[in-house]
Amino acid sequence: MTVASIGDINFAPPKELVELAAKVKDFVKDKVVPYEKDPRWTAHGPTDELRIELNTLARQAGVFAPHVPKEYGGRAISQIGCALVFEAAGYSILGPTAIHCASPDEGNIHLLDVVARPDQRDHFLKPLAEGKVRSCFCMTEPGGAGSDPSLLQTTARLDGNEWVINGRKWLITGADNAGWAIIMAKLESGPMNGHATLFLVDLPNPAIKIERTLDTIDSSFTGGHAVIEIKDLRLPADSVLGEIGKGFRYAQVRLAPARLSHCMRWLGSAVRAQEIATDYARQRVAFGKKLGEHEGVSFMLADNMMDIHMARLAIWHTAWLLDKGDRASNESSMSKVICSEAIARVADRSMQILGGMGMTRDTVVERIFRDTRAFRIYDGPSEVHRWALGARIVSGKM
Amino acid sequence: MTVASIGDINFAPPKELVELAAKVKDFVKDKVVPYEKDPRWTAHGPTDELRIELNTLARQAGVFAPHVPKEYGGRAISQIGCALVFEAAGYSILGPTAIHCASPDEGNIHLLDVVARPDQRDHFLKPLAEGKVRSCFCMTEPGGAGSDPSLLQTTARLDGNEWVINGRKWLITGADNAGWAIIMAKLESGPMNGHATLFLVDLPNPAIKIERTLDTIDSSFTGGHAVIEIKDLRLPADSVLGEIGKGFRYAQVRLAPARLSHCMRWLGSAVRAQEIATDYARQRVAFGKKLGEHEGVSFMLADNMMDIHMARLAIWHTAWLLDKGDRASNESSMSKVICSEAIARVADRSMQILGGMGMTRDTVVERIFRDTRAFRIYDGPSEVHRWALGARIVSGKM
Amino acid sequence: MTVASIGDINFAPPKELVELAAKVKDFVKDKVVPYEKDPRWTAHGPTDELRIELNTLARQAGVFAPHVPKEYGGRAISQIGCALVFEAAGYSILGPTAIHCASPDEGNIHLLDVVARPDQRDHFLKPLAEGKVRSCFCMTEPGGAGSDPSLLQTTARLDGNEWVINGRKWLITGADNAGWAIIMAKLESGPMNGHATLFLVDLPNPAIKIERTLDTIDSSFTGGHAVIEIKDLRLPADSVLGEIGKGFRYAQVRLAPARLSHCMRWLGSAVRAQEIATDYARQRVAFGKKLGEHEGVSFMLADNMMDIHMARLAIWHTAWLLDKGDRASNESSMSKVICSEAIARVADRSMQILGGMGMTRDTVVERIFRDTRAFRIYDGPSEVHRWALGARIVSGKM
Amino acid sequence: MTVASIGDINFAPPKELVELAAKVKDFVKDKVVPYEKDPRWTAHGPTDELRIELNTLARQAGVFAPHVPKEYGGRAISQIGCALVFEAAGYSILGPTAIHCASPDEGNIHLLDVVARPDQRDHFLKPLAEGKVRSCFCMTEPGGAGSDPSLLQTTARLDGNEWVINGRKWLITGADNAGWAIIMAKLESGPMNGHATLFLVDLPNPAIKIERTLDTIDSSFTGGHAVIEIKDLRLPADSVLGEIGKGFRYAQVRLAPARLSHCMRWLGSAVRAQEIATDYARQRVAFGKKLGEHEGVSFMLADNMMDIHMARLAIWHTAWLLDKGDRASNESSMSKVICSEAIARVADRSMQILGGMGMTRDTVVERIFRDTRAFRIYDGPSEVHRWALGARIVSGKM
Repeated sequence: MTVASIGDINFAPPKELVELAAKVKDFVKDKVVPYEKDPRWTAHGPTDELRIELNTLARQAGVFAPHVPKEYGGRAISQIGCALVFEAAGYSILGPTAIHCASPDEGNIHLLDVVARPDQRDHFLKPLAEGKVRSCFCMTEPGGAGSDPSLLQTTARLDGNEWVINGRKWLITGADNAGWAIIMAKLESGPMNGHATLFLVDLPNPAIKIERTLDTIDSSFTGGHAVIEIKDLRLPADSVLGEIGKGFRYAQVRLAPARLSHCMRWLGSAVRAQEIATDYARQRVAFGKKLGEHEGVSFMLADNMMDIHMARLAIWHTAWLLDKGDRASNESSMSKVICSEAIARVADRSMQILGGMGMTRDTVVERIFRDTRAFRIYDGPSEVHRWALGARIVSGKM
Repeated sequence: MTVASIGDINFAPPKELVELAAKVKDFVKDKVVPYEKDPRWTAHGPTDELRIELNTLARQAGVFAPHVPKEYGGRAISQIGCALVFEAAGYSILGPTAIHCASPDEGNIHLLDVVARPDQRDHFLKPLAEGKVRSCFCMTEPGGAGSDPSLLQTTARLDGNEWVINGRKWLITGADNAGWAIIMAKLESGPMNGHATLFLVDLPNPAIKIERTLDTIDSSFTGGHAVIEIKDLRLPADSVLGEIGKGFRYAQVRLAPARLSHCMRWLGSAVRAQEIATDYARQRVAFGKKLGEHEGVSFMLADNMMDIHMARLAIWHTAWLLDKGDRASNESSMSKVICSEAIARVADRSMQILGGMGMTRDTVVERIFRDTRAFRIYDGPSEVHRWALGARIVSGKM
Repeated sequence: MTVASIGDINFAPPKELVELAAKVKDFVKDKVVPYEKDPRWTAHGPTDELRIELNTLARQAGVFAPHVPKEYGGRAISQIGCALVFEAAGYSILGPTAIHCASPDEGNIHLLDVVARPDQRDHFLKPLAEGKVRSCFCMTEPGGAGSDPSLLQTTARLDGNEWVINGRKWLITGADNAGWAIIMAKLESGPMNGHATLFLVDLPNPAIKIERTLDTIDSSFTGGHAVIEIKDLRLPADSVLGEIGKGFRYAQVRLAPARLSHCMRWLGSAVRAQEIATDYARQRVAFGKKLGEHEGVSFMLADNMMDIHMARLAIWHTAWLLDKGDRASNESSMSKVICSEAIARVADRSMQILGGMGMTRDTVVERIFRDTRAFRIYDGPSEVHRWALGARIVSGKM
Repeated sequence: MTVASIGDINFAPPKELVELAAKVKDFVKDKVVPYEKDPRWTAHGPTDELRIELNTLARQAGVFAPHVPKEYGGRAISQIGCALVFEAAGYSILGPTAIHCASPDEGNIHLLDVVARPDQRDHFLKPLAEGKVRSCFCMTEPGGAGSDPSLLQTTARLDGNEWVINGRKWLITGADNAGWAIIMAKLESGPMNGHATLFLVDLPNPAIKIERTLDTIDSSFTGGHAVIEIKDLRLPADSVLGEIGKGFRYAQVRLAPARLSHCMRWLGSAVRAQEIATDYARQRVAFGKKLGEHEGVSFMLADNMMDIHMARLAIWHTAWLLDKGDRASNESSMSKVICSEAIARVADRSMQILGGMGMTRDTVVERIFRDTRAFRIYDGPSEVHRWALGARIVSGKM
């Protein structure tokens, strides 16, 4: 074989990233997996105490936050790098929390790295990137504004040199005990009237009240998902993140890679589920032979393998586009649908293979199944992506 | 149209059963649904306190336990009757508990009604049928013996005029706080050596220890699912239920209708999920129109409707066979697969239609989704039924 | 068991219909199946010569056209009767042609029986019902007007005491060599201007030209599917079928049962495919055991069995409703989707089980596969039915 | 972005291959597509006359056989090159025939290039690579020996210095009018007794009789698929291809890339089907708006796009492995299943979008649908690959 020239297709990731991912995988297997039985992993995700304990272990192992900018101690790895490392971290649902690549912090770090002013970097990005605080992204609202941002009801108006913000946010991941928040609101006046804008605010703040933490099917996010009331929140005029009126655009800047990093992390979950199901199929006996010797089971394992293979290829391809500077809107949407559905199938089949055991929390597959169900909704339900892709195909925009 | 003659196909259930089911549905909507937010509905099912409160309401409404023998206050309704009534009860996951048709009691009542001696009827069946105690059925074991009974490890040997039973049971629904248990064990000696036998025992009993209650994905069963250790349990010689050595056969007597009553109850869950999703689709707006005006959503509602339709027809057909005295092994297996998979699809689509809301416990669909996932395993995973049906087709036995 | 009272669910068809269906099945197996290798079964369906030969055999066997009115020699069996008999006939794709219950004649007989004037009955219905001529139903057009009748372009205007009809029809089944046609056209004038109306016309007619016979994936219909040009066709004023302006309504009168009789006939195809696949799985050896002993194959046979079971139940239920005089619009739509998709899956799996053999015309499964693919489109694609059902659910009309 | 270093993931194919593929695509669109209505494209594939006419056009356009060795006028492009070029050729089902990359010739060229002696290269490979003759590969037999080679019944015994071969072959693609054949037979004597061996023989040969050409669902292969009788065929001792007894191994050498080139070509078919369906959805109106504005349709187009995307990524990945010298057994199996099923779904959805039109040969989608159905069987049914993959997972061999 000849040496690859520029422009040659190549599916071999750089050696240093492969090694880093292997290190992360070892760390997760050895140090994180034992915490999966820890009672501090609650129905609303790991507690902050557990998170901090895991972060410390990750720092000791030299695998903490390799995706953050170098000035904050990270390695600023590429999207391809993230693909490898986040999948390795995802081997345990607690892994991304441990190495600090979990949502929403990971996406917020990315957004601020691209958009924030130097003073905002120091004040907000630095402590987040270094794992000293958590953050949240307050976009979704009870009446929508998740998939369809035009439904945004939270308002911001300028009162002298202060913004006054009012609204109600819903399904806000990690809000409870976060150190700061990004809030999306619709301007009520001025030249950008009606346009969405992002604001940065330290937490806690007396004008921001956590009404309740939602009981949800998933349980991987520290702090869970909250309903928040924002009542007459007053912020200095310079609290805007980026430019006034560009809230939707920034949400997209954040979402395309954030959506993909969800795929990466949960792909790790699928790998784990397949491993547990395979082990079980090798040992458990039913109807006179090993479970795995029944084609009804081995076909499911083969399908899992193919789903994992396809999800990984889709992720790598989109990551490569993002690394090249491509916006990759279509590919990011396709990867979200392909991966979330493939990964959910893997979790479902693994659970089925485990039989009665699969219905219990005696293996982590039960939590993987529930988390990956939610993944089919979070960051855009499959239907919204199919709708957007279909409309672009029909209109000839792709 | 002419009056139906004997031998004419007829899909209209008897008027009195239709009325009874309507009464049950009204009761569940009015009285039971409000309890769905009650904290006594725990991750391990409703508490006994909640159960008793609901039973009282059901008695007051005249809808308590219509399926139990008349001598215990029931109406001894047919399987077709159960199909209508249990579906109505299943409109709330708590409904079957309320009217006392939940598993495993419902199946145990049936089994004892067919097999028990008069003294056993008085001692065990009567208080159960009247809702004074709960019961459990101890068959499944950690190493299997759920789908494949040949894996049974629990043993029973005759020591003088006493049976001595040892073993470990797993996923035993409702064991915690049950008033009595049926235990399946393999004989270690005698002419029926190696054959499975059922034993009746009052609970609590010092030789029967609940090791732990399993955390499971479902949450509909009072008492949850337990792991049980049976250590040197000594029972009088007459503790056998039915004949010695016929444990497997009785398990089948119990399972065929029990499997079908699972279908009936969870069909009610599917109806409920569809109703909640439809209401949401009629009100929620996305991308400029009502959610339900998007074909991406309305097609899912149509598919739900078809799945519910097919599940109901399959249930009615098998119920009719059972009422005729047919064993209906194949039809019962087919109904289990058809219904559990159709109902799980309905729950999944309903959840997807609800979007972010669907991931939360703000609607009961989240619990329905988790319960119906377990239904694809309980009383025989789809794969075991496909295996059995396929083998019979290939061997020409059907 | 007690004797069934009115209002009792009953899945047992009347004895006389069961016996009639058994007679039809025997006839098809013994007399029709051998013709499946006859070269007169062309890519455009059986030739008229072959059809007439088969009809003669059916008459000799006493199974010719049991669904037609008694005055024309039939038995006027109910929809439940049709469900049994047409399924039996469908055991061979040539079976419905043989006993004269194939589309479009079967639907046209039904329509004229309900709508035609006495003189039209004599002139058109009688020879059709007696199998002396074939007929066609000219509704669909190149630009649509199949699923969406509002797209109808063919026009009819009154010129003195004659209608003048112009237009182009497409996918007109059985047009080639038909004895008469029903033509749907849109009125161009008068009080019912713009409304669709049905006309009856003898064929051949110099103003009606068969442009070409379409090559299609299916091959069960005598005469195939034609493109027809109607140019200045002049018909006497009394050529209207039923009332002026009620063309769409009559199309529905025809379609609901016609759609269901498609389900019945092709269900017979599914039964046949399953039988062929099962026989093959019992004999063919692969990888050291019989094909059918591989779960990968036996699971497919089990799924086929369940799909056949569900399709049959859906048909019987809708047939029962129609027999009661119910319009059964929703149930007819549901049955069309459920049956066409279930039957297509059965054909696909059977073909897959047959492996290389399945790709060839050495078994009839290849033709069944192609015919049942078309069934997912004919008489309303699944998407049109899902759209209609979904819209009714969302609008609260059901 | 930095210049890619060795070991960087890269999804951009080399410029010269991209250009070559574009040239092939232009050729197919301009020159080959018009032949899709040519009557010489029969139910048994294109005739040799049509093939030769298309080959001439390909030579004139400079796109003939870029995959064959340079000594025979080709460019010896890599597997990645084939992925691009064969997909482009597959835009018309006749495209691979036109540029001479169709099966079985393409696989036979590869096999002889790897295994044949110099004299065999001159006599057999040269004329084939140059498109002067066609060839066939006689492995499959009536009783199997397709998926499971252990079922091989054709025998070869050494009689003096001649081999005597007897047997019957089935589904032999391109046998009719081929210039030579590879025959697989089981040795009946000698040290390699019982082992499969490949033989080369010129055609026609009086001992090799084409019993009949099978009617099959597909129609892309010149010569169709034949049943062949081999009776006392006597061949010189040096007629063996490669080493004695290594027939199975060589079949694998041939199959892994041959399987993948099937994926490549039919991926082009999927692209074509999607293009035709998209055009139709943009123009055709139904129920008040363009077909493509119905989500029921646009979602199908989005799913097609995702299936095409995944199939392409899977192909490229396996091609890259093969180019590196990897045997890629697992990846080749996975690609076969993923691609054949994804492509068949694309064809099915495209056909469904086209409605009635899709059932006719008025678009080429009908032929694509039928061809891609066969692809799920040819070169190993999905079930055989799932079985092999599953067994390797369970046994820990991967």
